[in-house]
Amino acid sequence: MSAREPIEIAILLFDRMTALDAIGPYEVLGRLRRASVRFVAHEKGVYRTDQRSLGLEASYRLEEVPAPAVVIIPGGPGQGELMEDERLHAWIRQAHATSRWTASVCTGSLVLAAAGLLRGVPATTHWLAMEELERWGAVPVAERVVFRPEERIATAAGVSAGIDLGLELAKRLAGERQAQEVQLTIEYDPRPPGGSGSPATADPEIVASLRRRSRFHQQTP
Amino acid sequence: MSAREPIEIAILLFDRMTALDAIGPYEVLGRLRRASVRFVAHEKGVYRTDQRSLGLEASYRLEEVPAPAVVIIPGGPGQGELMEDERLHAWIRQAHATSRWTASVCTGSLVLAAAGLLRGVPATTHWLAMEELERWGAVPVAERVVFRPEERIATAAGVSAGIDLGLELAKRLAGERQAQEVQLTIEYDPRPPGGSGSPATADPEIVASLRRRSRFHQQTP
Repeated sequence: MSAREPIEIAILLFDRMTALDAIGPYEVLGRLRRASVRFVAHEKGVYRTDQRSLGLEASYRLEEVPAPAVVIIPGGPGQGELMEDERLHAWIRQAHATSRWTASVCTGSLVLAAAGLLRGVPATTHWLAMEELERWGAVPVAERVVFRPEERIATAAGVSAGIDLGLELAKRLAGERQAQEVQLTIEYDPRPPGGSGSPATADPEIVASLRRRSRFHQQTP
Repeated sequence: MSAREPIEIAILLFDRMTALDAIGPYEVLGRLRRASVRFVAHEKGVYRTDQRSLGLEASYRLEEVPAPAVVIIPGGPGQGELMEDERLHAWIRQAHATSRWTASVCTGSLVLAAAGLLRGVPATTHWLAMEELERWGAVPVAERVVFRPEERIATAAGVSAGIDLGLELAKRLAGERQAQEVQLTIEYDPRPPGGSGSPATADPEIVASLRRRSRFHQQTP
């Protein structure tokens, strides 16, 4: 790839996805000077997010973007239906054969695992899906983002971790200077309240309550 | 408003907006148990974001949501065209007459100012637009989020600050417990690299370079 060529970034859209999983990396990576972002899906059109009130538009069919430099697979409740989506898995495997990075946010890593990309590979996901990720053959790691240059796989924790993933990808794709420019442009100087951002530091009663309500918990016998 | 009634949240969409400005607060506020989010615009349909590659769908016309509990005005390059949009300004003023909070992210505060809501009011915006905000009669404050209970106005800094705005609004609308649940659900435990998230701590050369390229800089004589 020449230094002048665009960096093609494919971001998957699907029904009942979590919007921020996709928009976090998009907002960062789309600002790189050579970035060319394509929102892809089985069919062109508007997909409803998990909260139903928002529609995100895919402008490309998967087949139209066969060899992106970067693949981003978001998560969300609709991920469940992607676990047996062979046509999607085949596209992911094909894209990964030539991608620089194949990446996921949140439960998107379960889809990478279902496509066969994470066997024995250290990876992360939403904290509620860590055991599920292990069941699919990955090695779960409780980190914000996990980069595996050997396998060209990058995975991020839940939802908002996609911004951190995006900035780390930006650095690796376009260098430290551009990554810093983008961080300043989106004024990423977060002020999270208290310790409620992680199950390790949140109120244990709230952690337990979310676990009980989790769809992954319900799948466990 | 009864404790059982939905909390109606109107988020404005427009052409060449910045996606994360809207999606940050949406991802937080839409998860509140009584939240009912409506993406509103002059006309229903898909609006292209500033990077053009993404379309966000508005499902309601402004007139269909005349009295939301919360108003969110995002920013982005397209904000420039909203500064003389009298029909939008009238809707914002009408909504603000009964809203619990009228809020903005990034250069959305310039639109609130143009609608006449920020005269003499402490407020924030994207760091590149602070002087512009002052020209529109507000009192610029270099904070991540600025809450003004007296005026029922909340403003956030650039782009990613919408997540922090959302969590603070969540606490005030639905209480500390629900805000903590949402923070844990979206795993908001950010790990921003270095000091590049704020002009106060970023590389001065990068700050100067972004200032030179800014559309607000260019407007200055």
